[in-house]
Amino acid sequence: MFEAAELDHKVSKDDYRREEGELRRALLQAQRDLGAQARFPVLVLIAGVEGAGKSETVHLLNEWLDPRFIEVTGFALPTEEEAAHPPMWRFWKALPPKGRIGIFFGAWHTMPILERVLGRLGAGGFAQRMEEIMRLERMLAAEGVLLVKYWFHLSKAQQKKRIAALEKDRETSWKVTRYDRALFERYDDFIAVCEPFLRATSTGEAPWTVVPAADERYRALFAGRHLLGALRGRLDTKAPPPAVPTVAASPPPGRVNIIRALTLNQEMSRADYDEALAEAQGRLARATRHRRYGKISVIAVFEGNDAAGKGGAVRRLGAALDPRAYRIVPVAAPTEEERAQPYLWRFWRHVPRPGRLTVFDRSWYGRVLVERVEGFAREHDWRRAFGEINDFEAQLAGHGAVVAKFWLAISKEEQHRRFKEREATPFKQHKITAEDWRNRAKWDAYEEAVCEMVERTSTAVAPWTLVEADNKLHARVKVIRTLAERVEAAVKRRD
Amino acid sequence: MFEAAELDHKVSKDDYRREEGELRRALLQAQRDLGAQARFPVLVLIAGVEGAGKSETVHLLNEWLDPRFIEVTGFALPTEEEAAHPPMWRFWKALPPKGRIGIFFGAWHTMPILERVLGRLGAGGFAQRMEEIMRLERMLAAEGVLLVKYWFHLSKAQQKKRIAALEKDRETSWKVTRYDRALFERYDDFIAVCEPFLRATSTGEAPWTVVPAADERYRALFAGRHLLGALRGRLDTKAPPPAVPTVAASPPPGRVNIIRALTLNQEMSRADYDEALAEAQGRLARATRHRRYGKISVIAVFEGNDAAGKGGAVRRLGAALDPRAYRIVPVAAPTEEERAQPYLWRFWRHVPRPGRLTVFDRSWYGRVLVERVEGFAREHDWRRAFGEINDFEAQLAGHGAVVAKFWLAISKEEQHRRFKEREATPFKQHKITAEDWRNRAKWDAYEEAVCEMVERTSTAVAPWTLVEADNKLHARVKVIRTLAERVEAAVKRRD
Repeated sequence: MFEAAELDHKVSKDDYRREEGELRRALLQAQRDLGAQARFPVLVLIAGVEGAGKSETVHLLNEWLDPRFIEVTGFALPTEEEAAHPPMWRFWKALPPKGRIGIFFGAWHTMPILERVLGRLGAGGFAQRMEEIMRLERMLAAEGVLLVKYWFHLSKAQQKKRIAALEKDRETSWKVTRYDRALFERYDDFIAVCEPFLRATSTGEAPWTVVPAADERYRALFAGRHLLGALRGRLDTKAPPPAVPTVAASPPPGRVNIIRALTLNQEMSRADYDEALAEAQGRLARATRHRRYGKISVIAVFEGNDAAGKGGAVRRLGAALDPRAYRIVPVAAPTEEERAQPYLWRFWRHVPRPGRLTVFDRSWYGRVLVERVEGFAREHDWRRAFGEINDFEAQLAGHGAVVAKFWLAISKEEQHRRFKEREATPFKQHKITAEDWRNRAKWDAYEEAVCEMVERTSTAVAPWTLVEADNKLHARVKVIRTLAERVEAAVKRRD
Repeated sequence: MFEAAELDHKVSKDDYRREEGELRRALLQAQRDLGAQARFPVLVLIAGVEGAGKSETVHLLNEWLDPRFIEVTGFALPTEEEAAHPPMWRFWKALPPKGRIGIFFGAWHTMPILERVLGRLGAGGFAQRMEEIMRLERMLAAEGVLLVKYWFHLSKAQQKKRIAALEKDRETSWKVTRYDRALFERYDDFIAVCEPFLRATSTGEAPWTVVPAADERYRALFAGRHLLGALRGRLDTKAPPPAVPTVAASPPPGRVNIIRALTLNQEMSRADYDEALAEAQGRLARATRHRRYGKISVIAVFEGNDAAGKGGAVRRLGAALDPRAYRIVPVAAPTEEERAQPYLWRFWRHVPRPGRLTVFDRSWYGRVLVERVEGFAREHDWRRAFGEINDFEAQLAGHGAVVAKFWLAISKEEQHRRFKEREATPFKQHKITAEDWRNRAKWDAYEEAVCEMVERTSTAVAPWTLVEADNKLHARVKVIRTLAERVEAAVKRRD
């Protein structure tokens, strides 16, 4: 993997000067086209051995390009705010929008490699982290992000020479830290971890490019030319990002439809309701005031048929909570800033800190429900969403969040009754629009989408709760009781 | 102030039931209109004595209104992220956008009152904090925010009764904390501080409303009716928010024009430049690597005539910095999320943490430059901006930021030469548009705006540096040297 990079590459001063001007103009032009098209973001990952000129190259890119539209982020130890969220949160926050270039130093690859070199991560754990990285990068690529990954390489001999040269000069000897020397002593261990890492995570959509770093001028022209090629390659292709192959696993005939298997009309009297609701709210109130609740966060997702009573359930849920410690995120059309980012970005930005609860009133499942049925998303885009959503929720749960998802199901007849009632009640008329009637006409397509959604995304860490909602009283109690149970179990586990 | 609130207000169960339904429907309708118009945000501040039903009332508002479009924020001790920014930053972050309702518990009034009651703040300091609050609220009101401030009041006797009642009941006795009892013992001290505070900060644009809190039903109807009145009052007025009276202080005739007093063409040879630039960059590099640099942040604002060389100066500045520790914010048209907020919001969101430097390429001065000259802002809006900008920068500086502002000035002739050169150079053509020529036609109006801007906003903590920029080499060195000096002085002060 590194053999070619260790060859003796050199560029003379004259050749460098000759080429630099032209390269710079072409890069500037490409950056301008990127901004004007605003079709995709560019994310450059910078990695490699110490002292291989990573900072210097980024400096140079900042000089060559228009630095106003480049954002460089270095990831060191997480801040308190970052540590209060799942590990990937800070990377999501720093993603460049469409039309811009983001440069990440020490992104998601750093910690697994370091932990593996230091022996804190076994082979199995390392393989799992690599798998997570590949899934993330595949998703970013599928969302249109142009991922350019540079690995700056020096052979052991080259690195030794460099350290010696720096140390000899009084002006630069301070640059060689104890950390550099310690790393150099582990050069072989480091390479032994990095080499398979690079090979495994060099995928078709996001390959690593090894930059031969020994000669400063060669390194600069190499990186500049490569970035230019990557930019132009995408800019000059007007086609949308290539589809990720997906398989439409159609359900076998005669399979039980889990929605139709529900008894939607559950009995509950008003008196039973008053008592059961108060009891469930009390349990939730106590669980969210438990001293260990400060260590977990709660994410409650509400989806359901139109007029299934999501709003009413959310309202009763809120009544049990401290209004300062929960918020409701109503999911509507994405804003301009959200449209410039990968699909899940607008949900990541609302992930709560520990001790907080967030209700998503509709959610990331929009992609496999309305966007699927209405044809707003291409089939391979909503098909890949199942796996991406599972990854997202696994990260939330892995960080200690309770992820509770409710599907509120009503019968077609009950929906008709409620639509008519809304139309007849003056202060409810705003709740019913022509769109609701249009959605209703696609009842079977939605039902099929719901069944597949539950089948593919009801996981051990983030299960769906199907709520029979023809009787609103039953539905509300079931929602709040289920959430209370989940939170109770989570604060107990935190012992 | 509290006399009326201490009278014996009561509402019977029947009266309450009769009124609640109607009130609720009217509130919901008002909230819907608010969202549909999306003309202004509503910010409700909740304050008052302990145990006066603040949480209960917010609960109720959440029940009456659609909770999806209300965001409740409680401000307790600042998190690490919040403490790394000026105190007002967290309030700005939580402001509701147009069309929504934000409810703040314990906003900017809490700390000054508490510190004053505990004797940690003298009368002078307290007066200053009140003045800051009034300026902030006046600005929010002028930006169109509907500010509704509730003070929940209980007399000493009423509070005593309430604590006794809670303690008697086993189910509620846990609600009375040691903190409540300690506060009750200082009831008189507390009122002695709050009363003048409320009077002083009850301004025409943001008056306090004292809510009589002893009777639960009266309190609920009072708050609900009042909020409804406030909402409807603004919703049903189609006029823009009333203009804040401002005085156009025209300069006395014959006053020296500070821009014309500059010698724009300063000599500097290429050889002198190379040396001086390297020296200035070196100073800046060392100053930003100083161990105390981690305690300050740097905000560098660049404004100037079109083609004055801002980009070139910023580029040379960046060359001296760690690319991970600075960012450039190019200020262009606001995004959709930014347009839904008060003017300064989009700058507050980019305020850096300590140890970071942010370059604003154009800035909040747009309001008193381009918006003033082109007539995008009404005169009283850009006139009030001077004071608001000074307040903003004083907060940044007060938190330990270096605020350095550069005006790059070129002569009309030099600008003409550069425009022509840009038009003649293929890879510079994108830099010159018809708009540049149009702006140039308003040279005198811009010059007048610049002079007034410098006069009004060059403060001791955030001075303007006028940079003679007909010679780019001189300009770059002056910018970087000035910034280096400011940072050096700041890290020294931090000793």
